[in-house]
Amino acid sequence: MERPIGVIDSGVGGLTVVSELIRQLPKEKIIYIGDTARCPYGPRPTDEVRQYTWEMIDYLLLHDIKMLVIACNTATAVVLEEAKKSLSIPVVGVIHPGTVAALKITKNDHVGVIGTEGTINSRAYDREIKRINSEITVESLACPKLVPLVEQGKFSGSEAKEIIEASLAPILATSIDSLILGCTHYPLLAPLIKEIAGKRIEIISSGEETAREVSALLYHQNLLFTEERKPEHIFYTTGPRQTFSQIAEQWLRLGKNDVKTINLSEKIKQQ
Amino acid sequence: MERPIGVIDSGVGGLTVVSELIRQLPKEKIIYIGDTARCPYGPRPTDEVRQYTWEMIDYLLLHDIKMLVIACNTATAVVLEEAKKSLSIPVVGVIHPGTVAALKITKNDHVGVIGTEGTINSRAYDREIKRINSEITVESLACPKLVPLVEQGKFSGSEAKEIIEASLAPILATSIDSLILGCTHYPLLAPLIKEIAGKRIEIISSGEETAREVSALLYHQNLLFTEERKPEHIFYTTGPRQTFSQIAEQWLRLGKNDVKTINLSEKIKQQ
Repeated sequence: MERPIGVIDSGVGGLTVVSELIRQLPKEKIIYIGDTARCPYGPRPTDEVRQYTWEMIDYLLLHDIKMLVIACNTATAVVLEEAKKSLSIPVVGVIHPGTVAALKITKNDHVGVIGTEGTINSRAYDREIKRINSEITVESLACPKLVPLVEQGKFSGSEAKEIIEASLAPILATSIDSLILGCTHYPLLAPLIKEIAGKRIEIISSGEETAREVSALLYHQNLLFTEERKPEHIFYTTGPRQTFSQIAEQWLRLGKNDVKTINLSEKIKQQ
Repeated sequence: MERPIGVIDSGVGGLTVVSELIRQLPKEKIIYIGDTARCPYGPRPTDEVRQYTWEMIDYLLLHDIKMLVIACNTATAVVLEEAKKSLSIPVVGVIHPGTVAALKITKNDHVGVIGTEGTINSRAYDREIKRINSEITVESLACPKLVPLVEQGKFSGSEAKEIIEASLAPILATSIDSLILGCTHYPLLAPLIKEIAGKRIEIISSGEETAREVSALLYHQNLLFTEERKPEHIFYTTGPRQTFSQIAEQWLRLGKNDVKTINLSEKIKQQ
């Protein structure tokens, strides 16, 4: 089916999900909105997160998307359930795919989750895991220093290593055998995190798992595009085009893609 | 949702899928039919496979199942698409979940598949992978000696190791970085296969991946059972109760479950 997959995020983090979608589903066309002008959503009141997220969804619905991916932990926590109920297309968030991967991978029923303070405090991952299997012990840890590392482009090197080591120390001291990277920025730090966590712990990337769940749902709903094509993806940002474009190229080697700036609401124009 | 998940197979192989369903979805109740009296399906004409499979499905529909898992490669190849079209409940086969896992895992776009001669000759895995990503190179290899090993209970030891080494040699000589175990019997040999394949190659178990896809679909269709319970599963066999029961306990440590013999059709009675 020719219609594109819509992906929304409060900023650039969701590009790690796009990167995995392109890798795992190379024939599918993606339309992405990053609401960089109003990023981050984490500290905002729920009503504001709801309003901003729906503005992005409404914009993508005009592009006749066949599936919606909410590639933002905060927006997933606030809007996923209502979007699933009110939209006629399938909706995938970033929280559930990581939890089913952890339930598959763990052998000792002891799972770790790292994320931003907002995500960890929401206990969304813990709840989702225990809904399916209440015997699982979940260790959660907020790692507020990791997003700034990524945004400064420090994916490797001794400073990054020290900060990640110090951040992860409490959770690595437990007996977890699997660790969910519960933030879309973290896949860029995955090589370092894997090295520090060691072979005992399997690292689960929300981006990889979300793309995989999208693939399974498209298949089951007969929505896969299976003819030959190399689709051109479209990226919208509510902030400066150039900054977004640079990050997309630098982080994810997405190549020179079509990046456009949009206004989602009058509020943005007034800012 | 209290309704059970129905699982069908031509024999005992599908019990590896059940074992994973119970591990990954411990609150869900399973009803299994193994058509051991008419096993294996592989050498039978398509029309016969279709008829036998629908007899199992019709029997499970009387038990008000909320989802159907076709835990048999032959039956999946023949009946999955028509079952998806004609049933109002979701239907999951064992071929697709392994392919999406491989598409996620492979980094060098070079994937291996092993299975019975029937499955490999059907090229079902190759087709499914290429439908999603035509750039992937797929190496397929029939390993006819592995099912007999499992059925003789030889999961480890030097004889099993020699047979597996000899069987896998041609595919291990390629540059695959992931290997799909495309037969429901093979998970019982997974520890030996992992050892022989080495760290370069990630082993993908259809059973684990099928259970994971079931979990994702139940979630997306609001069909998960999330209250506390330790469900009692039901196992039906068309052959001798005791043989089936012994295998279920010995292979999968499923414990003493309720195993009943059933007749699916007059034909069985006449045999």
